[in-house]
Amino acid sequence: MSFEIAVGSNIRKSPYFEATVADGVKSFSVYNHMFAPAHFGDPEAQYRALLERVIMWDVACERQVELAGPDAEQLMRYLTPRDITGMAIGQGKYVPICNYAGDLINDPVVQKLADDCFWLSIADSDLLLWAGAIAAERGLNVRVSEPDASPLGVQGPRANDVVADLFGDWVRELKYFWFRQTELDGIPILLARSGWSKQGGFELYLRDASRGTELYNRVKQAGAPYGIVPGAPSDMERIESGLLSYGADARYGVNPFEVNLGAFMDLDRDDDFVGKAALQRIVAEGIRRRRVGFVIGGERISGTSEWHGVKLGDDVVGTVTEATFSPRLGQNIAVGMLAAGIADDAQQLKTDFGDGPRSAAVRSLPFC
Amino acid sequence: MSFEIAVGSNIRKSPYFEATVADGVKSFSVYNHMFAPAHFGDPEAQYRALLERVIMWDVACERQVELAGPDAEQLMRYLTPRDITGMAIGQGKYVPICNYAGDLINDPVVQKLADDCFWLSIADSDLLLWAGAIAAERGLNVRVSEPDASPLGVQGPRANDVVADLFGDWVRELKYFWFRQTELDGIPILLARSGWSKQGGFELYLRDASRGTELYNRVKQAGAPYGIVPGAPSDMERIESGLLSYGADARYGVNPFEVNLGAFMDLDRDDDFVGKAALQRIVAEGIRRRRVGFVIGGERISGTSEWHGVKLGDDVVGTVTEATFSPRLGQNIAVGMLAAGIADDAQQLKTDFGDGPRSAAVRSLPFC
Repeated sequence: MSFEIAVGSNIRKSPYFEATVADGVKSFSVYNHMFAPAHFGDPEAQYRALLERVIMWDVACERQVELAGPDAEQLMRYLTPRDITGMAIGQGKYVPICNYAGDLINDPVVQKLADDCFWLSIADSDLLLWAGAIAAERGLNVRVSEPDASPLGVQGPRANDVVADLFGDWVRELKYFWFRQTELDGIPILLARSGWSKQGGFELYLRDASRGTELYNRVKQAGAPYGIVPGAPSDMERIESGLLSYGADARYGVNPFEVNLGAFMDLDRDDDFVGKAALQRIVAEGIRRRRVGFVIGGERISGTSEWHGVKLGDDVVGTVTEATFSPRLGQNIAVGMLAAGIADDAQQLKTDFGDGPRSAAVRSLPFC
Repeated sequence: MSFEIAVGSNIRKSPYFEATVADGVKSFSVYNHMFAPAHFGDPEAQYRALLERVIMWDVACERQVELAGPDAEQLMRYLTPRDITGMAIGQGKYVPICNYAGDLINDPVVQKLADDCFWLSIADSDLLLWAGAIAAERGLNVRVSEPDASPLGVQGPRANDVVADLFGDWVRELKYFWFRQTELDGIPILLARSGWSKQGGFELYLRDASRGTELYNRVKQAGAPYGIVPGAPSDMERIESGLLSYGADARYGVNPFEVNLGAFMDLDRDDDFVGKAALQRIVAEGIRRRRVGFVIGGERISGTSEWHGVKLGDDVVGTVTEATFSPRLGQNIAVGMLAAGIADDAQQLKTDFGDGPRSAAVRSLPFC
């Protein structure tokens, strides 16, 4: 199945849109109401570049939500179960966001730009609306808005070299999730060690949307000696790495404990936050399902495009949320959910991607 | 420019997805995190069917937000500037939703299912999050959730005949935006006289997602004698009709008075609602731009895919938010915005879609 994407003014174009088109993008997805490149013709070649060299990707669709003003930290603390006490200016943290029922509604990285200014680099849901409603209803003195900031990812083992050639050797010392505000040929950039892979690298948050093509080409040029290619976050790599894809692996109705985010839940905090009572109840009662990996039997697959049940006999006991062929493992693998009562060594689990039953063997995450 | 759409599990499939694929859908957009058919190969043929006969379209992406519980009406009243006093069970109303700054953030139709139950049929933003945050922060006793409800549109001059053949002649008496809960071959349906065109028709809200293909094929079969074709909302028709497309014509930062929605703003209500003070200030100060139509000069266009400035000399005085060729008028036409100081008979306005300057002559909406 292959379909065109309707390119209309209802979906925003990234500041890098024209550059990715010039670079041969073949497929887009839509994320936060913005076109997001999906691949440039050969997803496996891009996966190899990510693992072995360096790749650049347009992730401007990771829109920023800025909390600015005297009560910005108070709002930020209220929005996430994670305790952000002691965060330094220039530091980032992964901060799951829950609703009042304890369901995950986004899983951004927050960056502290100043004592009274935070940016949330969001997954695919309108956190701008969520945070804005809460700020207003609580009467907080904080402005919730979308700043002009569009991440460009540089990921892979040679990302350090590419980005050091562009910005200087100081970038090699930048700690994970820390950032610095800088510039490149006069282009204002927030440079963070971050990115949606486990291969390491940076995100260059372009702070002037009019200069997207310029930044894109500058990075491409700097990356050429290292074999950089254009691409997009890789399903293969993210499933091997067990990264959570909000939207694909969870949307409404999944709580953070079910998807292995318990380490980010500081439920014993003294201060209140959205979902606190519900999350405490979830911990007390125990979760009914958990996030796992699966090795999937049968012929090599290219991927999956929707959720598929995992059965034990006739009972649905789990879900494959996304599956892929893993080049590193030489097997079909998946991320998904499994009912709490089913053990890691469960035998006879089956799934079906539409072409007949396949075995599903439970594995812990990450695969690699 | 033509690109594939990445079909991944991060975007939901409509209950009609398989049926539209079987029916030859060529292009999708994404709306409310769901694949939405854009066209089936010949947008102008679908436009003709909409105007002259009847067309069916998958608009399951108009997701529903249900407000249920003792405080449902209180929440609904607080969410919109429009006064919904006196709404009957079985009635719908167009209810613009603003944020606290008075900006439009969605423009749904609300349907009153019971004294304590409302559905909002939403445009492309996460109103589920917005309404949920407000309900919780205000301590209201109301459950905000997404029900299992997926609209299938039947639009055009023969829509009455098709839907009467399916449900009975009572549908001919159904008033605009009114609805009834009924069923078809045991499939539970909320049937409303509604739809995103000015050609008239119905929306069949399927209330059991597992029966999408069944309903789709039943409507297709009933429509065959009337020449029904599969399609999608038509850019040509909606621009001729001056319909607002939230997302395309406005996203963040546009207030309802700027897009001609003043008739739905009951700012003198005694009770409070989101954005009340800001909207009163906007009225007192006057708007700085207004929604207009444009007749666009030059060669026939197929459409536009982003906003384009409208200039008077070197000054940007407006925006074309979306343009198309109008078969009925035999001209290129557009919807957009114009600075308040520019008169309807302004001469010398120019725009540029990337292939050189074109004249832009102001027209009032609708065109047809």
